[in-house]
Amino acid sequence: MKTVDSKLTDVQVTDNFWSNYMDVVINEVIPYQWAALNDQIPDAPPSHAIKNFRIAAKEEKGEFKGYVFQDSDVAKWLEAVAYSFETDPNPELEKTADEVIDLIGRAQEESGYLNTYFTINEPDQKWTNLRDHHELYCAGHMIEAAVAYYQSTGKRKLLDIMSRFVDHIDSIFGHGENQLPGYPGHQEIELSLVKLYRVTNNKRYLNLSKYFIDERGKTPHYFDIEKQKRGDEKKPWWTDEYGSYSYHQAHLPVREQKEAIGHAVRAMYMYTAMADLASETNDQTLKEASKRLWENVTQRQMYITAGVGSMSHGEAFSFDYDLPNDLCYTETCASIGLVFWAKRMLNLEKDSQYADVMERALFNGTISGMDLDGKKFFYVNPLEVWPKASLKRKDRIHVKHERQKWFNCACCPPNLARLITSIGHYVYSADQNEAYVHLYVGSEGELDIGEQKVKIVQKSNFPWDGNINITILPEEEAVFTIALRIPGWSKGAILKVNGDVIDLNDDVKKGYAYISRKWRKGDEIHLNLPMTIEKMKAHPNVRGNIGKVAIQRGPLVYCLEEADNGGNLPSIYLPLNSQLNAHFDKDFLGGMTVITGDAERLDDYGWDEQLYQPAESKRKPTRIKAIPYYAWCNRKPGEMLVWINEKS
Amino acid sequence: MKTVDSKLTDVQVTDNFWSNYMDVVINEVIPYQWAALNDQIPDAPPSHAIKNFRIAAKEEKGEFKGYVFQDSDVAKWLEAVAYSFETDPNPELEKTADEVIDLIGRAQEESGYLNTYFTINEPDQKWTNLRDHHELYCAGHMIEAAVAYYQSTGKRKLLDIMSRFVDHIDSIFGHGENQLPGYPGHQEIELSLVKLYRVTNNKRYLNLSKYFIDERGKTPHYFDIEKQKRGDEKKPWWTDEYGSYSYHQAHLPVREQKEAIGHAVRAMYMYTAMADLASETNDQTLKEASKRLWENVTQRQMYITAGVGSMSHGEAFSFDYDLPNDLCYTETCASIGLVFWAKRMLNLEKDSQYADVMERALFNGTISGMDLDGKKFFYVNPLEVWPKASLKRKDRIHVKHERQKWFNCACCPPNLARLITSIGHYVYSADQNEAYVHLYVGSEGELDIGEQKVKIVQKSNFPWDGNINITILPEEEAVFTIALRIPGWSKGAILKVNGDVIDLNDDVKKGYAYISRKWRKGDEIHLNLPMTIEKMKAHPNVRGNIGKVAIQRGPLVYCLEEADNGGNLPSIYLPLNSQLNAHFDKDFLGGMTVITGDAERLDDYGWDEQLYQPAESKRKPTRIKAIPYYAWCNRKPGEMLVWINEKS
Repeated sequence: MKTVDSKLTDVQVTDNFWSNYMDVVINEVIPYQWAALNDQIPDAPPSHAIKNFRIAAKEEKGEFKGYVFQDSDVAKWLEAVAYSFETDPNPELEKTADEVIDLIGRAQEESGYLNTYFTINEPDQKWTNLRDHHELYCAGHMIEAAVAYYQSTGKRKLLDIMSRFVDHIDSIFGHGENQLPGYPGHQEIELSLVKLYRVTNNKRYLNLSKYFIDERGKTPHYFDIEKQKRGDEKKPWWTDEYGSYSYHQAHLPVREQKEAIGHAVRAMYMYTAMADLASETNDQTLKEASKRLWENVTQRQMYITAGVGSMSHGEAFSFDYDLPNDLCYTETCASIGLVFWAKRMLNLEKDSQYADVMERALFNGTISGMDLDGKKFFYVNPLEVWPKASLKRKDRIHVKHERQKWFNCACCPPNLARLITSIGHYVYSADQNEAYVHLYVGSEGELDIGEQKVKIVQKSNFPWDGNINITILPEEEAVFTIALRIPGWSKGAILKVNGDVIDLNDDVKKGYAYISRKWRKGDEIHLNLPMTIEKMKAHPNVRGNIGKVAIQRGPLVYCLEEADNGGNLPSIYLPLNSQLNAHFDKDFLGGMTVITGDAERLDDYGWDEQLYQPAESKRKPTRIKAIPYYAWCNRKPGEMLVWINEKS
Repeated sequence: MKTVDSKLTDVQVTDNFWSNYMDVVINEVIPYQWAALNDQIPDAPPSHAIKNFRIAAKEEKGEFKGYVFQDSDVAKWLEAVAYSFETDPNPELEKTADEVIDLIGRAQEESGYLNTYFTINEPDQKWTNLRDHHELYCAGHMIEAAVAYYQSTGKRKLLDIMSRFVDHIDSIFGHGENQLPGYPGHQEIELSLVKLYRVTNNKRYLNLSKYFIDERGKTPHYFDIEKQKRGDEKKPWWTDEYGSYSYHQAHLPVREQKEAIGHAVRAMYMYTAMADLASETNDQTLKEASKRLWENVTQRQMYITAGVGSMSHGEAFSFDYDLPNDLCYTETCASIGLVFWAKRMLNLEKDSQYADVMERALFNGTISGMDLDGKKFFYVNPLEVWPKASLKRKDRIHVKHERQKWFNCACCPPNLARLITSIGHYVYSADQNEAYVHLYVGSEGELDIGEQKVKIVQKSNFPWDGNINITILPEEEAVFTIALRIPGWSKGAILKVNGDVIDLNDDVKKGYAYISRKWRKGDEIHLNLPMTIEKMKAHPNVRGNIGKVAIQRGPLVYCLEEADNGGNLPSIYLPLNSQLNAHFDKDFLGGMTVITGDAERLDDYGWDEQLYQPAESKRKPTRIKAIPYYAWCNRKPGEMLVWINEKS
């Protein structure tokens, strides 16, 4: 049975937590990025992105400037803008977006080709370096923008532009005569082609995505073939036991890949497409590969914040259980990619482990990438920060202890913008007979359960409180199933329908509580997820976390900051039996639940000038205050720590 | 009162521990290096070092090859050879060395200038880039070789060659007209000039050393002046709050320096010279600066193994208390330099803290650089090794999990060779009225205590056993003082003279027990240093060691190896009350004291495929076996760990 995702137009987000983020994106991030794309930020180096399109359209003179993937910034902006209209229709912004789309149309070549770098600077070098240049990557982002814009405005123009470009791409790649048997160096177009197929129903787009996925990793390696053609003799900068291909996840055919490796964002985007294709084509080997890779990432290579990519070198995965807290890369975009992938895995099979990870990423490792004002951004989301080390040690230079202004990192902020404006996409899904509630996000959803139109109204104060009230409003009373995710972190959940308790022992399957009945307009579901404070442990193979605990409450991972707890945070010991208390502090950073409790702190009394001595550790009582991880670094800069020494 | 060091000729090392090392150096390292210098190692890239001298002497045609400091390899070899003659006179080797010295003489230019790189390749570029090229550094090493060769053989030839070169250098540098107000980019000549002064009594050599030290760090920076002269506009690769100068410890005048910074070996060599000059010239400000830097290094920036330099970037110091165990650089040469410096600090003032650190370095972080066969070497001496991370993580690529063959690293092995062959230099010193025993190394020393010639015969099975027997053999009976170091690690030392207990409460001053009496031939000192096994802690500010203990027995730091304890060493917990037992295992790696005891190990039972869960740590009993740190990696490659989790 094919799952139909809730589309943007189906879900209106109403809850405080995400509405705030949406407001920040709509009022701060999107206008700022528009100014940036137009080189109107006084202190920032010019983006040149819009100008590149004007030059390509021959409406201005000049050279292409910026990264070879500069076009994708415009695409991500358009995509975020498209999603924003659902919450916040804005005719003026739509007019601006329409004009950008017109400009994109004028920058498109006669053949359908669209990439300002090559059109302007190297018209003869198109498709000669798929490994490093980002033609297909940029195409992918623009396709995503086109689909989003079509879905939110009904306007086909960008969809038609991109369909023309994809038709052209389809003619270039493949095994036919005069075709290139290539695939992108940065995966992205694969997942976008599935989206394009879903709105156009043009099977060629699905097949092209499948072609790119199937072709990847075959020998001889296409990257070698094109390299030889170019006469390029440069040694690749990335190398491991698989050579240089693994950076791009092209070291093996995707169905033979068992461990996440290489650049984490590339990996996430590829796995997303694999899962999409597995469900669209019912490809069992692709499904198995997807599940294997999912298990590897989430059971071996994922931080508790849902950060992925533990190495700065290559912004990449390293190997199983290698999760150092102070050296990680854990790029914001990689956690965003993990959300994309999790959603596709949920399409493949309804298992709450996918939604659990999706939730973990949404409430921790993604939004940690932006400050609460939407003005500064992290590329890297570490779990332990010692500012002095970040400043002085080159091996930690990627671990910033303060978020950077937008203009220093063009990739993560717009990715966050499009994720946050589309948060409604992740809340529900519907099958022929079931509606699923994957996330607890206050919202109103219009779902098609088979033929039945059902409105679901969800209200809660999540993630601060686990009381979820859901009202079911079918167009007409009907028998169908509502499946509610019982999060992995919850213990003693209580589920009631119209006040009657549902026995969760019987009705929970793979983490979802299935309630099948005749639903009438106004039926009430109440789900209580007790939000206990958990002291989490990591698998004993994760060396950096041995002897340490992380505080988690509901979906939120907590951290200690120097602003609340003083310096040398690793010297704090949390007794395992320490009573921790959560309370909502409405005055703290706009209102959030903080956790306080008794702990101990190493005492340096008597150490004087010794560096080493045979000594008992002396500890003195201290109080700790932990705040949600995502909210760190919204006050004065300082140390931060997720994994706290335990006193056992 | 000026201290006179025991000279090489004064001390014969007899104990097993160091004799073994000397044998390895004499029988393995020195011949191997000779072959290497002559390009006779089949699998190794040629050194070209001897050939460079032949070409410079115009006896062969060709280009200079190798590093710009290739000459120093020949110097260090000669120096080690010189020291070796005392233990192991070898007329054949001496003939070879004499021939090398003759060759060096023939490579010397008319002016006295001696550096094969510049003589061959860039005769017009001499002294134009003191910062990066190593003319003065190579000169320094050759001066050290000349002094050693003169002292051990009485032959003056190399001494005369180098005196001529130094006369030339003295004419080049200074504030006179047509002189360069420069100083070396890699300190080394400063300490060698003090040695040269001591054997020649030529005060100009002392003054030249003092000039280089005094000039350093003045503004305008000489490195900028010469850079500008060269028209060199390259950006320096090293930069910190002091700019690029701090890499070379030239960021401030040396007397204003308070923290060790920059390249660790450069720092050690410079601090050595500073202490030398402070004692030779009775310069109080230099003495204060030396003590301040000593405190900074040993109380803030030194690993428990006496490794220094916690960053791979620049092979450098980072900042106070930043001592990560798995990312350190801790170059073998830097610990060797720390031994040099400690000896000079002892000359400045008799305080056992200096000898304690000297001993810590000698028994741990220096000799860990060589395997027990003298065939493989570590540049980097980490305190925690996870081979998989060393292989896969670029930020740990410098942390090798196996020693490398000689030819991959030309700097540390010969430095170790000259240290080990001169170990006798570090054991004793004598003043006008006192003889000091700094180290417990079985040996026979001939000391001049004022006018009095005294032979000291020291016997022990150190470091395995703390029973030290010392026989005092004055030429004639006389009143003088024997001062014995009571090591910082010892508790409950018992000191007897001819069977009578000396009260250590009264007679110990700054870590030395002073015994003043009329000494007669054959008087016996017995010192018992109980070798308890200590669980050492690091200062609470050393984050990486919080909650951890290191095992130390006597001067030896111990470690766990995978070969004895299985993998995932960080999962081992050592209860603070665990009884550890030491026993000498004569069959283990040639015989050494190993430590065993009960510990616990994290149990991964029940974790299955979870990566994070709220859980109690389960631990199961285990036995541990710890071996001396210096002896790690003499069996099959695997994990190693010094700092063990404590169970408190």
